[in-house]
Amino acid sequence: MYDEVLPKLVVKNSTKLVMLVIDGVGGTTNENGVTELEVANTPNMDALAKSGACGLHRPVGYGLTPGSGPGHLGLFGYNPLKYDVGRGILEALGVDMTVNPGDLAVRGNFATMEDGLITDRRAGRIRTEHCKQLVEKLSSRISRLESIDIDIKAGRDYRFAVVFRGPELSNMLTEADPQIVGVPPVIAKPLNIRAEKSARIINEFIKMVTDILKDEKPANTVLIRGYAQISQILLTHDKFGLRAVSIASYPMYRGLAKLVGMDTPLCGETVEEEFEQVRKLWNEDYDFFFIHIKKTDSYGEDGNFAGKVGVIEEVDRELPKILDLKPDVITITGDHSTPAVMKSHSWHPVPLVIKGRYTFADDTQKFSERECAKGIVGQIPAEAIMMIMMADAGRLLKYGA
Amino acid sequence: MYDEVLPKLVVKNSTKLVMLVIDGVGGTTNENGVTELEVANTPNMDALAKSGACGLHRPVGYGLTPGSGPGHLGLFGYNPLKYDVGRGILEALGVDMTVNPGDLAVRGNFATMEDGLITDRRAGRIRTEHCKQLVEKLSSRISRLESIDIDIKAGRDYRFAVVFRGPELSNMLTEADPQIVGVPPVIAKPLNIRAEKSARIINEFIKMVTDILKDEKPANTVLIRGYAQISQILLTHDKFGLRAVSIASYPMYRGLAKLVGMDTPLCGETVEEEFEQVRKLWNEDYDFFFIHIKKTDSYGEDGNFAGKVGVIEEVDRELPKILDLKPDVITITGDHSTPAVMKSHSWHPVPLVIKGRYTFADDTQKFSERECAKGIVGQIPAEAIMMIMMADAGRLLKYGA
Repeated sequence: MYDEVLPKLVVKNSTKLVMLVIDGVGGTTNENGVTELEVANTPNMDALAKSGACGLHRPVGYGLTPGSGPGHLGLFGYNPLKYDVGRGILEALGVDMTVNPGDLAVRGNFATMEDGLITDRRAGRIRTEHCKQLVEKLSSRISRLESIDIDIKAGRDYRFAVVFRGPELSNMLTEADPQIVGVPPVIAKPLNIRAEKSARIINEFIKMVTDILKDEKPANTVLIRGYAQISQILLTHDKFGLRAVSIASYPMYRGLAKLVGMDTPLCGETVEEEFEQVRKLWNEDYDFFFIHIKKTDSYGEDGNFAGKVGVIEEVDRELPKILDLKPDVITITGDHSTPAVMKSHSWHPVPLVIKGRYTFADDTQKFSERECAKGIVGQIPAEAIMMIMMADAGRLLKYGA
Repeated sequence: MYDEVLPKLVVKNSTKLVMLVIDGVGGTTNENGVTELEVANTPNMDALAKSGACGLHRPVGYGLTPGSGPGHLGLFGYNPLKYDVGRGILEALGVDMTVNPGDLAVRGNFATMEDGLITDRRAGRIRTEHCKQLVEKLSSRISRLESIDIDIKAGRDYRFAVVFRGPELSNMLTEADPQIVGVPPVIAKPLNIRAEKSARIINEFIKMVTDILKDEKPANTVLIRGYAQISQILLTHDKFGLRAVSIASYPMYRGLAKLVGMDTPLCGETVEEEFEQVRKLWNEDYDFFFIHIKKTDSYGEDGNFAGKVGVIEEVDRELPKILDLKPDVITITGDHSTPAVMKSHSWHPVPLVIKGRYTFADDTQKFSERECAKGIVGQIPAEAIMMIMMADAGRLLKYGA
């Protein structure tokens, strides 16, 4: 957004900006006509909604349901339709793997196969330690196929990343993941002639892995998806002149933050630990704090309405720890909606509150979809959020005389 | 906006359109949680808001604070990110100077220098008459440097315009204006090799001027900025088929109106004089009346909340004079927000009311940011206003069969 003029307008100052992303926080009305945010008891967020400016944002576009990658790129001020970051790269960056131009990064799930059918796409959600042991086993046996070097690294729970390095790789492949259970595994198919080698490598890799794991339980095969090759992106400190840091525990979000040039120190998993990390880093040389809360999305995907409400309330209880730091501008929103009633990400616009020195104190009474829809910010594209935060922080010069 | 299809759709008829621009009319909430428009007693505008359609417009883009140039270009239906008009051109056009392609137009301030430091960037805001005398003195002594002819003309108060005419001029220069006081003057530096000649000319010009003015008080030097060369723009009578006239007293706004092809007769300064001018011109062969009220912005920039409220109320009192003319479509809005609480232009969306024969009478009860945010027009880019006015005036054909 505004890539042409932004370089002339961005100035630096000593303001500190906070973007608190509650993953999948938005919802849609359930059978009782209410959303998770409407049911949640959130006095602190509501106070912020009352004193700040509210609205809704569209993560990618009208009717488009974002993955976590595009969802976050939008929040970070990048048009997610222009910058297409594959999940494989995010997963790989998130576990501190290097991805170079030309490499093919993919995301893997350990899975369970019985009688030739995939019966669990997450192998009973095996624990991270178990995942690491399996990856170690695979790494010791698979390191190269044809002219391609293969790096495997464990992620969280049942997830892992693979980076294929070598000539003539392509991400134009179908996913080697049936997406449902009770069906046989599927192979990767090339979408064009230049991807034939990559398809061959991926399928051979899966075959070798399945052979190595054949006596394991429950993780006796793998599903491969999220093929990605790296694309150019303007870093946050170039685009917005911000030295930025992520407070996120899940690899995926740290990877995304790293992609736009944020520092990505490790941090604890709970809301309390994350907010404590912000406090510790507050007086470091950072201008922008991206804080990521994961569990709202997880509960939403599980269809656990009450669980999602509970995490929202937990964030609200802890929120004063952030507010006490007196950020110059704070935004609370999500990267997309994950209505428990849908058990999945959705296209619904996401509620948004921005509070800074010069934000308009509109009439919004509660941080919820319905109330924010009446806010003065209106419905804006996700990319616009960074612009408004930058403006309120006094970090953008006047455009034109 | 819609440059490709508009030529096929525009038709002419006898409707008369009025765009009343109250400069910087928008605000943001102050310490009492209210804006200038919310405090102002504006029965006439409120009646218009009740009977017309309301909304907010974004002058240039999300988070972008417009200068007056881009702010007005948007209102006139031109994308201000596409048409970048430099201040120098606006200033020069506003004092009836001719600017041709290749010319370099700049804006100057008379300023005060003491002991080698700039102590007042506006030379005590000297009066226009004083400014004219100084410009006369300079004009009689400086008319040419190297191969470049130099035209100087006084503007309002401490401002003047200079047009440099000749070969190899460029606007790629840094401003010869430190922007703050208590520091030494700065020279113009070329931003690329092709601008070296222009930098040399500008700096030599400043040196000569400062020498000529050395015994003057308080205006003993000048600051130069707003370097501009002319760019192509579609004129209003070509783009919209409108014969348009500006009712604006400040040179800057007359210059801008002239740039898009409006007639720009001189007119008085007060709201009453301006509205009287509209009445006088009403039966002339004009379709579009651009009326510009300046003082709201001036008070906003001075941080004078009550002063800005006063001008808004003055406009409201006089408004029946315009309404009595029964324009077919009237729009009241601003070119940007100038919240008194910020003492500057801002990025905040600007309230907007449109009343025509077929505008939707929404529930808006008052002409204010908060109320207009709930209006049926929603939040639109500034360029869209002309489209809606044209449509309501019956001046746009159906698109497609």
